Amino acid sequence: MSGTLYGIGLGPGDAELMTLKAARLIGSARVVAYPALAGGESFARSIAAELLADGVQEIRIDVPMVVDRAPAQAAYDKAADEISAALETGLDVVVLCEGDPFFYGSFMYLYARLSGRFTVEVVPGVTSMTASAAALGLPLAARNEVLSVIPGPLEDEALKVLIAAADSVVIMKVGRHLERVRRAIEGLGLLDRAHYIERASLVQERRMALAEAPQKAPYFSMILITKGADPWL
Amino acid sequence: MSGTLYGIGLGPGDAELMTLKAARLIGSARVVAYPALAGGESFARSIAAELLADGVQEIRIDVPMVVDRAPAQAAYDKAADEISAALETGLDVVVLCEGDPFFYGSFMYLYARLSGRFTVEVVPGVTSMTASAAALGLPLAARNEVLSVIPGPLEDEALKVLIAAADSVVIMKVGRHLERVRRAIEGLGLLDRAHYIERASLVQERRMALAEAPQKAPYFSMILITKGADPWL
Repeated sequence: MSGTLYGIGLGPGDAELMTLKAARLIGSARVVAYPALAGGESFARSIAAELLADGVQEIRIDVPMVVDRAPAQAAYDKAADEISAALETGLDVVVLCEGDPFFYGSFMYLYARLSGRFTVEVVPGVTSMTASAAALGLPLAARNEVLSVIPGPLEDEALKVLIAAADSVVIMKVGRHLERVRRAIEGLGLLDRAHYIERASLVQERRMALAEAPQKAPYFSMILITKGADPWL
Repeated sequence: MSGTLYGIGLGPGDAELMTLKAARLIGSARVVAYPALAGGESFARSIAAELLADGVQEIRIDVPMVVDRAPAQAAYDKAADEISAALETGLDVVVLCEGDPFFYGSFMYLYARLSGRFTVEVVPGVTSMTASAAALGLPLAARNEVLSVIPGPLEDEALKVLIAAADSVVIMKVGRHLERVRRAIEGLGLLDRAHYIERASLVQERRMALAEAPQKAPYFSMILITKGADPWL
Protein backbone atom coordinates (compact mmCIF):
# COMPACT_ATOMS: atom_id res chain seq x y z
CA MET A 1 0.00 0.00 0.00
CA SER A 2 1.33 3.43 -0.97
CA GLY A 3 1.23 6.34 1.46
CA THR A 4 -1.01 9.39 1.18
CA LEU A 5 0.19 12.76 -0.09
CA TYR A 6 -1.06 15.65 2.06
CA GLY A 7 -1.03 19.23 0.79
CA ILE A 8 -1.36 21.26 3.96
CA GLY A 9 -2.24 24.94 4.13
CA LEU A 10 -0.26 26.65 6.88
CA GLY A 11 -2.06 29.98 6.80
CA PRO A 12 -0.53 33.41 6.21
CA GLY A 13 2.48 33.19 8.53
CA ASP A 14 1.46 33.43 12.20
CA ALA A 15 1.84 29.81 13.34
CA GLU A 16 -1.30 30.15 15.48
CA LEU A 17 -3.33 30.66 12.29
CA MET A 18 -2.61 27.06 11.32
CA THR A 19 -5.60 24.72 11.61
CA LEU A 20 -5.84 22.01 14.27
CA LYS A 21 -5.77 19.45 11.45
CA ALA A 22 -2.60 20.91 9.94
CA ALA A 23 -0.90 20.89 13.35
CA ARG A 24 -1.90 17.27 13.97
CA LEU A 25 -0.69 16.03 10.58
CA ILE A 26 2.57 17.98 10.69
CA GLY A 27 3.33 16.86 14.24
CA SER A 28 2.98 13.19 13.32
CA ALA A 29 4.65 13.40 9.88
CA ARG A 30 7.69 11.24 9.18
CA VAL A 31 8.36 12.87 5.80
CA VAL A 32 7.77 16.53 4.97
CA ALA A 33 8.42 18.48 1.77
CA TYR A 34 8.45 22.24 1.27
CA PRO A 35 9.41 24.86 -1.30
CA ALA A 36 12.32 27.21 -0.67
CA LEU A 37 13.81 29.99 -2.71
CA ALA A 38 16.95 28.48 -4.22
CA GLY A 39 19.71 28.81 -1.64
CA GLY A 40 17.49 30.69 0.84
CA GLU A 41 15.22 29.97 3.75
CA SER A 42 11.83 28.26 3.37
CA PHE A 43 8.97 30.47 4.57
CA ALA A 44 6.68 27.42 4.71
CA ARG A 45 9.13 25.47 6.87
CA SER A 46 9.58 28.44 9.21
CA ILE A 47 5.82 28.52 9.94
CA ALA A 48 5.72 24.82 10.85
CA ALA A 49 9.19 24.48 12.39
CA GLU A 50 8.07 24.16 16.04
CA LEU A 51 5.85 21.20 15.20
CA LEU A 52 8.30 19.03 13.25
CA ALA A 53 9.18 15.76 14.98
CA ASP A 54 12.79 14.81 15.70
CA GLY A 55 14.33 12.85 12.87
CA VAL A 56 11.69 13.80 10.30
CA GLN A 57 12.86 13.30 6.71
CA GLU A 58 12.87 16.63 4.85
CA ILE A 59 12.49 17.01 1.10
CA ARG A 60 13.50 20.53 0.17
CA ILE A 61 12.21 21.87 -3.16
CA ASP A 62 14.65 24.51 -4.35
CA VAL A 63 12.61 26.78 -6.62
CA PRO A 64 14.62 29.12 -8.84
CA MET A 65 13.14 32.65 -9.04
CA VAL A 66 13.46 33.24 -12.77
CA VAL A 67 10.87 34.27 -15.35
CA ASP A 68 11.62 31.26 -17.55
CA ARG A 69 9.47 28.42 -16.23
CA ALA A 70 11.57 25.46 -17.30
CA PRO A 71 13.95 25.50 -14.28
CA ALA A 72 11.02 25.58 -11.81
CA GLN A 73 9.34 22.73 -13.69
CA ALA A 74 12.56 20.73 -13.43
CA ALA A 75 12.65 21.42 -9.66
CA TYR A 76 9.10 20.08 -9.28
CA ASP A 77 9.88 17.05 -11.47
CA LYS A 78 12.78 16.21 -9.15
CA ALA A 79 10.66 16.79 -6.02
CA ALA A 80 7.86 14.62 -7.42
CA ASP A 81 10.37 11.80 -7.90
CA GLU A 82 11.64 12.06 -4.32
CA ILE A 83 8.11 12.25 -2.92
CA SER A 84 7.00 9.28 -5.05
CA ALA A 85 9.86 7.21 -3.69
CA ALA A 86 8.73 7.88 -0.11
CA LEU A 87 5.05 7.25 -0.89
CA GLU A 88 5.90 3.95 -2.56
CA THR A 89 7.50 2.66 0.65
CA GLY A 90 4.11 3.22 2.34
CA LEU A 91 5.02 6.43 4.15
CA ASP A 92 2.73 9.46 4.05
CA VAL A 93 4.27 12.71 2.83
CA VAL A 94 3.17 16.08 4.18
CA VAL A 95 3.77 19.05 1.87
CA LEU A 96 3.98 22.36 3.75
CA CYS A 97 2.17 25.13 1.83
CA GLU A 98 2.04 28.84 2.65
CA GLY A 99 -1.55 30.08 2.85
CA ASP A 100 -3.93 27.65 1.15
CA PRO A 101 -2.60 24.94 -1.22
CA PHE A 102 -5.09 25.74 -4.00
CA PHE A 103 -5.17 29.55 -3.71
CA TYR A 104 -2.21 30.75 -5.82
CA GLY A 105 -0.13 28.03 -4.20
CA SER A 106 2.75 26.02 -5.59
CA PHE A 107 1.28 22.74 -4.30
CA MET A 108 -0.68 22.44 -7.52
CA TYR A 109 2.56 21.69 -9.38
CA LEU A 110 2.98 18.57 -7.24
CA TYR A 111 -0.74 17.83 -7.42
CA ALA A 112 -0.59 17.83 -11.21
CA ARG A 113 2.34 15.42 -11.17
CA LEU A 114 1.18 12.98 -8.47
CA SER A 115 -2.61 12.98 -8.07
CA GLY A 116 -3.08 10.40 -10.81
CA ARG A 117 -0.87 7.84 -9.07
CA PHE A 118 -1.38 8.41 -5.35
CA THR A 119 -4.13 9.28 -2.89
CA VAL A 120 -3.98 13.01 -2.25
CA GLU A 121 -5.68 14.97 0.50
CA VAL A 122 -5.68 18.76 0.48
CA VAL A 123 -6.12 20.50 3.84
CA PRO A 124 -7.31 24.06 3.26
CA GLY A 125 -5.70 26.94 5.13
CA VAL A 126 -6.34 30.57 5.99
CA THR A 127 -5.39 32.70 2.98
CA SER A 128 -3.30 35.88 3.16
CA MET A 129 -6.37 37.54 1.62
CA THR A 130 -8.68 37.12 4.60
CA ALA A 131 -5.78 37.61 7.04
CA SER A 132 -5.09 40.96 5.36
CA ALA A 133 -8.74 42.01 5.55
CA ALA A 134 -8.77 41.08 9.25
CA ALA A 135 -5.61 43.08 9.96
CA LEU A 136 -6.89 46.11 8.04
CA GLY A 137 -10.32 45.96 9.66
CA LEU A 138 -11.93 45.90 6.22
CA PRO A 139 -14.80 43.49 5.52
CA LEU A 140 -14.02 41.93 2.12
CA ALA A 141 -17.50 41.23 0.85
CA ALA A 142 -21.03 41.31 2.20
CA ARG A 143 -24.39 40.13 0.99
CA ASN A 144 -24.52 40.22 -2.83
CA GLU A 145 -21.20 41.93 -3.44
CA VAL A 146 -18.76 40.69 -6.07
CA LEU A 147 -15.14 40.13 -5.02
CA SER A 148 -12.38 39.85 -7.61
CA VAL A 149 -8.88 38.59 -6.92
CA ILE A 150 -6.42 39.94 -9.46
CA PRO A 151 -2.68 39.33 -9.80
CA GLY A 152 -0.64 42.56 -9.92
CA PRO A 153 1.39 41.56 -13.01
CA LEU A 154 -1.71 41.83 -15.24
CA GLU A 155 -1.49 44.52 -17.90
CA ASP A 156 -3.07 47.93 -17.27
CA GLU A 157 -6.19 47.63 -19.41
CA ALA A 158 -7.23 44.25 -18.00
CA LEU A 159 -6.49 45.51 -14.50
CA LYS A 160 -8.73 48.56 -14.93
CA VAL A 161 -11.65 46.68 -16.46
CA LEU A 162 -11.59 44.05 -13.69
CA ILE A 163 -11.25 46.59 -10.86
CA ALA A 164 -14.16 48.61 -12.27
CA ALA A 165 -16.43 45.54 -12.50
CA ALA A 166 -16.21 44.33 -8.87
CA ASP A 167 -17.44 45.71 -5.54
CA SER A 168 -14.30 44.62 -3.69
CA VAL A 169 -10.91 43.92 -5.20
CA VAL A 170 -7.86 42.12 -3.86
CA ILE A 171 -4.65 42.59 -5.82
CA MET A 172 -2.12 39.86 -5.09
CA LYS A 173 1.60 39.64 -5.83
CA VAL A 174 1.98 43.41 -5.93
CA GLY A 175 5.75 43.52 -5.45
CA ARG A 176 7.51 45.52 -8.14
CA HIS A 177 4.20 46.33 -9.85
CA LEU A 178 3.10 48.65 -7.04
CA GLU A 179 3.64 52.00 -8.75
CA ARG A 180 1.91 50.94 -11.96
CA VAL A 181 -1.03 49.37 -10.10
CA ARG A 182 -1.37 52.46 -7.91
CA ARG A 183 -1.58 54.68 -11.01
CA ALA A 184 -4.30 52.45 -12.47
CA ILE A 185 -6.31 52.66 -9.22
CA GLU A 186 -5.84 56.43 -9.07
CA GLY A 187 -7.00 56.70 -12.70
CA LEU A 188 -10.25 55.02 -11.68
CA GLY A 189 -10.77 57.51 -8.85
CA LEU A 190 -10.46 54.77 -6.22
CA LEU A 191 -7.21 55.72 -4.46
CA ASP A 192 -9.05 56.82 -1.32
CA ARG A 193 -10.74 53.39 -1.10
CA ALA A 194 -7.47 51.42 -1.42
CA HIS A 195 -5.31 49.98 1.34
CA TYR A 196 -1.89 48.37 1.30
CA ILE A 197 -0.56 45.59 3.51
CA GLU A 198 2.60 43.48 3.54
CA ARG A 199 3.47 40.33 5.51
CA ALA A 200 0.00 40.06 7.07
CA SER A 201 -0.09 38.31 10.49
CA LEU A 202 3.72 38.31 10.90
CA VAL A 203 5.54 40.55 13.41
CA GLN A 204 6.93 42.46 10.40
CA GLU A 205 3.40 43.26 9.17
CA ARG A 206 2.97 46.80 7.76
CA ARG A 207 -0.30 48.36 6.63
CA MET A 208 -1.38 51.80 5.46
CA ALA A 209 -3.48 53.71 2.94
CA LEU A 210 -2.27 52.86 -0.57
CA ALA A 211 -1.58 56.57 -1.14
CA GLU A 212 1.09 56.37 1.60
CA ALA A 213 2.59 53.01 0.61
CA PRO A 214 6.30 52.82 -0.21
CA GLN A 215 7.37 52.67 -3.85
CA LYS A 216 8.93 49.25 -3.43
CA ALA A 217 6.85 46.40 -2.11
CA PRO A 218 7.94 42.87 -1.16
CA TYR A 219 6.45 39.84 -2.91
CA PHE A 220 4.17 39.13 0.07
CA SER A 221 2.15 42.32 -0.30
CA MET A 222 -1.44 43.02 -1.23
CA ILE A 223 -3.83 45.85 -2.08
CA LEU A 224 -7.46 45.83 -0.95
CA ILE A 225 -10.09 48.06 -2.50
CA THR A 226 -13.58 48.21 -0.98
CA LYS A 227 -15.99 50.46 -2.81
CA GLY A 228 -19.06 50.45 -0.59
CA ALA A 229 -19.36 53.38 1.80
CA ASP A 230 -20.92 51.24 4.53
CA PRO A 231 -21.67 48.10 2.59
CA TRP A 232 -22.24 45.97 5.67
CA LEU A 233 -24.95 47.93 7.45
CA MET B 1 -10.96 49.05 31.09
CA SER B 2 -13.41 47.59 28.61
CA GLY B 3 -12.97 44.07 27.25
CA THR B 4 -11.97 43.17 23.70
CA LEU B 5 -14.43 42.01 21.07
CA TYR B 6 -13.12 39.02 19.09
CA GLY B 7 -14.64 38.03 15.74
CA ILE B 8 -13.44 34.48 15.29
CA GLY B 9 -13.53 32.53 12.04
CA LEU B 10 -14.43 28.89 12.71
CA GLY B 11 -13.76 27.57 9.21
CA PRO B 12 -16.24 25.75 6.97
CA GLY B 13 -17.69 23.26 9.45
CA ASP B 14 -15.20 20.50 10.31
CA ALA B 15 -14.09 21.49 13.82
CA GLU B 16 -10.53 20.41 12.98
CA LEU B 17 -10.37 23.18 10.36
CA MET B 18 -10.50 25.76 13.14
CA THR B 19 -7.22 27.59 13.74
CA LEU B 20 -5.11 27.05 16.86
CA LYS B 21 -5.80 30.68 17.77
CA ALA B 22 -9.56 30.26 17.44
CA ALA B 23 -9.46 27.14 19.62
CA ARG B 24 -7.39 28.91 22.30
CA LEU B 25 -9.65 31.98 22.43
CA ILE B 26 -12.89 29.97 22.42
CA GLY B 27 -11.64 27.60 25.11
CA SER B 28 -10.83 30.44 27.48
CA ALA B 29 -13.87 32.61 26.67
CA ARG B 30 -16.22 33.60 29.47
CA VAL B 31 -18.75 35.20 27.10
CA VAL B 32 -19.55 33.98 23.58
CA ALA B 33 -22.06 35.26 21.03
CA TYR B 34 -23.29 33.56 17.87
CA PRO B 35 -25.95 33.89 15.18
CA ALA B 36 -28.75 31.35 14.90
CA LEU B 37 -31.65 31.05 12.56
CA ALA B 38 -34.62 32.28 14.55
CA GLY B 39 -35.86 29.37 16.65
CA GLY B 40 -33.35 26.93 15.15
CA GLU B 41 -29.90 25.58 15.85
CA SER B 42 -26.75 27.68 15.49
CA PHE B 43 -24.32 26.24 12.93
CA ALA B 44 -21.53 28.41 14.36
CA ARG B 45 -22.13 27.16 17.92
CA SER B 46 -22.21 23.55 16.73
CA ILE B 47 -18.70 23.88 15.25
CA ALA B 48 -17.26 25.25 18.50
CA ALA B 49 -19.42 23.32 20.99
CA GLU B 50 -16.73 20.90 22.20
CA LEU B 51 -14.46 23.77 23.21
CA LEU B 52 -16.88 25.89 25.24
CA ALA B 53 -16.01 26.11 28.95
CA ASP B 54 -18.51 25.15 31.62
CA GLY B 55 -20.61 28.09 32.72
CA VAL B 56 -19.78 30.26 29.72
CA GLN B 57 -22.29 33.09 29.17
CA GLU B 58 -23.99 32.70 25.78
CA ILE B 59 -25.47 35.56 23.77
CA ARG B 60 -27.65 34.10 21.05
CA ILE B 61 -28.42 36.30 18.05
CA ASP B 62 -31.72 35.16 16.59
CA VAL B 63 -31.56 36.20 12.95
CA PRO B 64 -34.89 36.17 11.10
CA MET B 65 -34.62 34.76 7.56
CA VAL B 66 -36.73 37.30 5.70
CA VAL B 67 -35.94 39.43 2.66
CA ASP B 68 -36.81 42.66 4.47
CA ARG B 69 -33.65 43.74 6.29
CA ALA B 70 -35.20 45.69 9.16
CA PRO B 71 -35.87 42.66 11.43
CA ALA B 72 -32.27 41.41 11.05
CA GLN B 73 -30.97 44.90 11.78
CA ALA B 74 -33.07 44.99 14.93
CA ALA B 75 -31.62 41.61 15.97
CA TYR B 76 -28.08 42.94 15.56
CA ASP B 77 -28.96 46.16 17.42
CA LYS B 78 -30.16 44.05 20.34
CA ALA B 79 -27.08 41.79 20.21
CA ALA B 80 -24.78 44.82 20.08
CA ASP B 81 -26.41 46.13 23.27
CA GLU B 82 -25.94 42.82 25.09
CA ILE B 83 -22.33 42.51 23.91
CA SER B 84 -21.60 46.13 24.89
CA ALA B 85 -22.88 45.47 28.39
CA ALA B 86 -20.48 42.54 28.79
CA LEU B 87 -17.52 44.46 27.29
CA GLU B 88 -18.16 47.40 29.62
CA THR B 89 -17.75 45.15 32.67
CA GLY B 90 -14.23 44.38 31.39
CA LEU B 91 -15.02 40.93 30.00
CA ASP B 92 -13.86 39.91 26.53
CA VAL B 93 -16.57 38.68 24.16
CA VAL B 94 -15.87 36.01 21.53
CA VAL B 95 -18.19 36.04 18.52
CA LEU B 96 -18.37 32.66 16.76
CA CYS B 97 -18.40 33.11 12.96
CA GLU B 98 -18.87 30.44 10.29
CA GLY B 99 -16.02 30.51 7.76
CA ASP B 100 -14.15 33.81 7.91
CA PRO B 101 -15.68 36.85 9.69
CA PHE B 102 -15.03 39.25 6.79
CA PHE B 103 -15.81 36.92 3.85
CA TYR B 104 -19.60 37.17 3.39
CA GLY B 105 -19.92 36.86 7.16
CA SER B 106 -22.50 38.35 9.48
CA PHE B 107 -19.83 39.53 11.94
CA MET B 108 -19.54 42.74 9.97
CA TYR B 109 -22.96 43.81 11.28
CA LEU B 110 -21.54 43.74 14.81
CA TYR B 111 -18.26 45.24 13.64
CA ALA B 112 -20.12 48.20 12.14
CA ARG B 113 -21.97 48.76 15.40
CA LEU B 114 -19.15 48.27 17.91
CA SER B 115 -15.72 48.91 16.36
CA GLY B 116 -15.89 52.64 17.07
CA ARG B 117 -16.35 52.11 20.83
CA PHE B 118 -14.37 48.97 21.65
CA THR B 119 -11.13 47.27 20.73
CA VAL B 120 -11.92 44.63 18.09
CA GLU B 121 -9.70 41.80 16.89
CA VAL B 122 -10.69 39.72 13.88
CA VAL B 123 -9.23 36.21 13.67
CA PRO B 124 -9.39 35.00 10.07
CA GLY B 125 -10.65 31.51 9.29
CA VAL B 126 -10.64 28.97 6.48
CA THR B 127 -13.37 29.93 3.99
CA SER B 128 -15.87 27.50 2.51
CA MET B 129 -14.38 28.57 -0.83
CA THR B 130 -10.95 27.04 -0.32
CA ALA B 131 -12.43 24.10 1.59
CA SER B 132 -14.64 23.40 -1.43
CA ALA B 133 -11.72 23.59 -3.84
CA ALA B 134 -9.76 21.19 -1.61
CA ALA B 135 -12.65 18.71 -1.47
CA LEU B 136 -13.22 18.86 -5.23
CA GLY B 137 -9.51 18.53 -6.02
CA LEU B 138 -9.70 21.72 -8.10
CA PRO B 139 -6.95 24.34 -7.78
CA LEU B 140 -8.76 27.68 -7.58
CA ALA B 141 -6.19 29.96 -9.13
CA ALA B 142 -2.58 29.75 -10.24
CA ARG B 143 0.05 32.26 -11.31
CA ASN B 144 -1.60 35.26 -13.02
CA GLU B 145 -5.15 33.94 -13.12
CA VAL B 146 -8.11 36.07 -12.10
CA LEU B 147 -10.57 34.64 -9.58
CA SER B 148 -14.04 36.13 -9.16
CA VAL B 149 -16.39 35.40 -6.29
CA ILE B 150 -19.98 36.01 -7.28
CA PRO B 151 -23.19 35.69 -5.23
CA GLY B 152 -25.80 33.48 -6.91
CA PRO B 153 -28.69 35.95 -6.45
CA LEU B 154 -27.11 38.34 -8.99
CA GLU B 155 -29.19 38.90 -12.12
CA ASP B 156 -28.41 36.91 -15.28
CA GLU B 157 -26.65 39.57 -17.33
CA ALA B 158 -24.26 40.61 -14.54
CA LEU B 159 -23.62 36.94 -13.78
CA LYS B 160 -22.70 36.16 -17.39
CA VAL B 161 -20.41 39.17 -17.84
CA LEU B 162 -18.55 38.41 -14.60
CA ILE B 163 -18.20 34.68 -15.31
CA ALA B 164 -16.87 35.41 -18.79
CA ALA B 165 -14.26 37.88 -17.50
CA ALA B 166 -12.50 35.61 -14.97
CA ASP B 167 -10.28 32.53 -15.25
CA SER B 168 -11.85 30.88 -12.21
CA VAL B 169 -15.23 31.59 -10.71
CA VAL B 170 -16.78 30.75 -7.37
CA ILE B 171 -20.52 31.21 -7.09
CA MET B 172 -21.65 31.53 -3.47
CA LYS B 173 -25.11 31.29 -1.91
CA VAL B 174 -26.42 29.16 -4.76
CA GLY B 175 -29.46 27.79 -2.92
CA ARG B 176 -32.70 28.35 -4.80
CA HIS B 177 -30.85 30.08 -7.67
CA LEU B 178 -29.24 26.85 -8.85
CA GLU B 179 -31.33 26.22 -11.96
CA ARG B 180 -31.03 29.78 -13.22
CA VAL B 181 -27.27 29.92 -12.55
CA ARG B 182 -26.79 26.56 -14.26
CA ARG B 183 -28.58 27.83 -17.38
CA ALA B 184 -26.35 30.91 -17.43
CA ILE B 185 -23.22 28.75 -17.19
CA GLU B 186 -24.51 26.42 -19.89
CA GLY B 187 -25.26 29.44 -22.11
CA LEU B 188 -21.58 30.40 -21.84
CA GLY B 189 -20.50 26.90 -22.90
CA LEU B 190 -18.87 26.27 -19.51
CA LEU B 191 -21.07 23.52 -18.07
CA ASP B 192 -18.34 20.89 -18.49
CA ARG B 193 -15.93 23.07 -16.46
CA ALA B 194 -18.37 23.56 -13.56
CA HIS B 195 -18.60 21.62 -10.30
CA TYR B 196 -21.12 21.68 -7.49
CA ILE B 197 -20.54 21.14 -3.78
CA GLU B 198 -22.68 21.47 -0.66
CA ARG B 199 -21.70 21.47 3.02
CA ALA B 200 -17.97 21.24 2.31
CA SER B 201 -15.91 19.51 5.03
CA LEU B 202 -18.96 18.22 6.93
CA VAL B 203 -19.96 14.55 7.00
CA GLN B 204 -22.99 15.51 4.90
CA GLU B 205 -20.74 16.93 2.17
CA ARG B 206 -21.91 16.19 -1.41
CA ARG B 207 -20.04 17.04 -4.58
CA MET B 208 -20.53 16.35 -8.27
CA ALA B 209 -20.37 17.82 -11.76
CA LEU B 210 -22.79 20.76 -11.99
CA ALA B 211 -24.57 18.96 -14.83
CA GLU B 212 -25.55 16.23 -12.33
CA ALA B 213 -26.43 18.49 -9.41
CA PRO B 214 -29.93 18.31 -7.90
CA GLN B 215 -32.45 21.01 -8.79
CA LYS B 216 -32.72 22.16 -5.19
CA ALA B 217 -29.61 23.25 -3.35
CA PRO B 218 -29.21 24.18 0.33
CA TYR B 219 -27.95 27.63 1.34
CA PHE B 220 -24.48 26.24 2.07
CA SER B 221 -23.74 25.26 -1.52
CA MET B 222 -21.28 26.53 -4.08
CA ILE B 223 -20.36 26.24 -7.76
CA LEU B 224 -16.73 26.29 -8.92
CA ILE B 225 -15.77 26.94 -12.53
CA THR B 226 -12.14 26.56 -13.59
CA LYS B 227 -11.49 27.37 -17.22
CA GLY B 228 -7.85 26.43 -17.72
CA ALA B 229 -7.28 22.98 -19.19
CA ASP B 230 -4.17 22.37 -17.10
CA PRO B 231 -3.56 25.83 -15.76
CA TRP B 232 -1.12 24.70 -13.09
CA LEU B 233 1.44 22.88 -15.15
